Amino acid sequence: MTEVVEMKLVVQKYGGSSVATPERIKNVAMRIKKKVEEGFKVVVVVSAMGKTTDELIKLAKEVSPKPDARELDMLLATGEQVSAALLSMALKDLGVKAKSLNAFQVRIKTTPHHTSARIMDIDDSVIMENLKEHDALVVTGFQGVNERGDLTTLGRGGSDTSAVALAAKLRVPCEIYSDVDGIYTCDPRLIPGAKKLKYITYDEALELTALGAKVLHSRSVEIAKKYRIPVYCASSFVEEEGTMVVERLPEWLEEPVVTGATISHGQIKVSISFLPKEAEYITAIFEEVGKRSLNVDMISLVPSNGKVFLSFTILEDHKDDLDEALRNALKNVEGWKSSYEEGFAKLSIVGVGMRTSPGVAARFFSALKRVGVTPELVTTSEIKISCLVPEKDAEKALKAVVDEFDLAE
Amino acid sequence: MTEVVEMKLVVQKYGGSSVATPERIKNVAMRIKKKVEEGFKVVVVVSAMGKTTDELIKLAKEVSPKPDARELDMLLATGEQVSAALLSMALKDLGVKAKSLNAFQVRIKTTPHHTSARIMDIDDSVIMENLKEHDALVVTGFQGVNERGDLTTLGRGGSDTSAVALAAKLRVPCEIYSDVDGIYTCDPRLIPGAKKLKYITYDEALELTALGAKVLHSRSVEIAKKYRIPVYCASSFVEEEGTMVVERLPEWLEEPVVTGATISHGQIKVSISFLPKEAEYITAIFEEVGKRSLNVDMISLVPSNGKVFLSFTILEDHKDDLDEALRNALKNVEGWKSSYEEGFAKLSIVGVGMRTSPGVAARFFSALKRVGVTPELVTTSEIKISCLVPEKDAEKALKAVVDEFDLAE
Repeated sequence: MTEVVEMKLVVQKYGGSSVATPERIKNVAMRIKKKVEEGFKVVVVVSAMGKTTDELIKLAKEVSPKPDARELDMLLATGEQVSAALLSMALKDLGVKAKSLNAFQVRIKTTPHHTSARIMDIDDSVIMENLKEHDALVVTGFQGVNERGDLTTLGRGGSDTSAVALAAKLRVPCEIYSDVDGIYTCDPRLIPGAKKLKYITYDEALELTALGAKVLHSRSVEIAKKYRIPVYCASSFVEEEGTMVVERLPEWLEEPVVTGATISHGQIKVSISFLPKEAEYITAIFEEVGKRSLNVDMISLVPSNGKVFLSFTILEDHKDDLDEALRNALKNVEGWKSSYEEGFAKLSIVGVGMRTSPGVAARFFSALKRVGVTPELVTTSEIKISCLVPEKDAEKALKAVVDEFDLAE
Repeated sequence: MTEVVEMKLVVQKYGGSSVATPERIKNVAMRIKKKVEEGFKVVVVVSAMGKTTDELIKLAKEVSPKPDARELDMLLATGEQVSAALLSMALKDLGVKAKSLNAFQVRIKTTPHHTSARIMDIDDSVIMENLKEHDALVVTGFQGVNERGDLTTLGRGGSDTSAVALAAKLRVPCEIYSDVDGIYTCDPRLIPGAKKLKYITYDEALELTALGAKVLHSRSVEIAKKYRIPVYCASSFVEEEGTMVVERLPEWLEEPVVTGATISHGQIKVSISFLPKEAEYITAIFEEVGKRSLNVDMISLVPSNGKVFLSFTILEDHKDDLDEALRNALKNVEGWKSSYEEGFAKLSIVGVGMRTSPGVAARFFSALKRVGVTPELVTTSEIKISCLVPEKDAEKALKAVVDEFDLAE
């Protein structure tokens, strides 16, 4: 007779500040040991120690003004391998059967695109095979291997994505530990009374992270949503309850109209005027932009006098690439003009409650008006309203919105 | 008609000090570019930058008093991946078609033994395939992958071994660049007039490196000898002629009786007395010693009164492991005693000329006698004489031997 024992399995991710020093690594090892003692097997995903990734990028720039992307990935991937090896050492010292695994070993397959690859598949057979003999597997976050066998990285915050992708593949919950103890209605450094959320939906978290809230990497939330993986965000430093990211809020919880407000700095407003009205030129622009993986946002299109006027925002460090994209896309067009205005921030409010509460936009704009801020571009989705405001007014505008929607205590 | 073009291919290895800083990495890239411009394709093997390996070991010890060997290899292997990526960036900036490859990518297969694995095979198809599109491939030295898919390292100086093994597999010459500009008759820091050798045989180089001369890793010379790969050792900092390690000295070169003299510090003399005369106990000792990968040397065995007295040397940091080995091997033996005497150095002379020149030993010992040094243990091979001398007398003894055999100018 074969006894079938259900394996209690969880994915835990520890961010760079949680493993920044040998002491902290040992502390994280203690936490994992506790989980193992509770009867769990743990797949641990680690980031690079502290500021390692920044330091490696600095080193690369000392060697090359514009480091080759493939080689940069080869370089950066070492950061997580260091922390994974060290954490496994600490776990073994605590008597936990542990082992580190890098992207080659786990076979984390990604798209080819260096420095911003996407995970395509993970070979869970390697994980499952290793879990037979081990209680904790420490996997390098942030990285994968593409079809050509080159190391790739997933972009900033990519370790969150590694963790949630692993959890999705293994169909187990995911816990994300960092120096932030949960998701707040707004940035507690700007708004001291910001409230910590016990629950947030995938959709809201997705909007907030896409808007620059630093708790979770947005790609990780996309994956969590797609595979309905509950993601718990908490601090590795304190024993405080964090935030659970879920499909739907628990029924006993009163749904707020607005769940969070956030500012995204460093926006450039791009205006392109006198474009031909044919759709092919707009298409060409966004194709060239896409090729360069530039994030454009807040797109607004106005036809006038047989010409088209296009506006959108980009981040400050993408300006040169955008210039090139426009020249390529419009090389056969005469008379077009482009201008860049720096010094903008994007202010957004997010909430699934908007779907059922009319008048949210009106309250939003009147709050801005009260403090004398005029929004430039405006975009909305079902659960989000964003507007572009001058950087100098951003904080004032945020405070007005926080007051209006009761986001702080 | 297909034109067959012979590919000019060479393996170059750059040591840690040659790639210690971004500036030096760029300098090495220039050297490789020059070789490419001469019509060569270059397989480059790199060590970790400067003192990186030491720093990683220090970090490991801050996490774990005795770091797990598998995880230590996982950690240390990152050092070469960093330098390989950076060097490839620098090469690409110079317009050289270059690419870095780590042990997973090259498929460098090793024995399972962590921290001192041996290369078993290298998949040259990966190298040859990549050479179609690239002129320089930068391979991480010092590391490999074992049968279980774990990263392994080859022990100190292992990058030399990686380079020569690659050269052997590709059947091309190997050039080893470091901060040392060649192989000398003796350590130039101790003996200012030490002569640089233009040629040295594999056998001599093997004895010298086994004795602690730091120019080449001994395993690398073994491989070079086995596959008859000419190895050129020179400095990456100056344009001076280095030393060629070959099967046989060129005929026009007068063969010296003694090619080099060297001191190996930090020796402990181990004496085990009152062993039973049966061979099984001696065998058991060396089996236990072998299991722990301890290097014992200068073995001397004296039977007396139905008992056996055994002496040999070990390195200072192996004492605890040896203690354990002896207790295991002799657990059923009564009455044996062991003693350790610290503070010894091993003085050796090496030369293929000894084979045909009688009286070398006599000259060696009379040179020692002249300066009042009495050797303790003595071992000889066809091309080497070694003796154990008190550490305090080592330099004086070396100078006497250097004078006797005309090793300095």
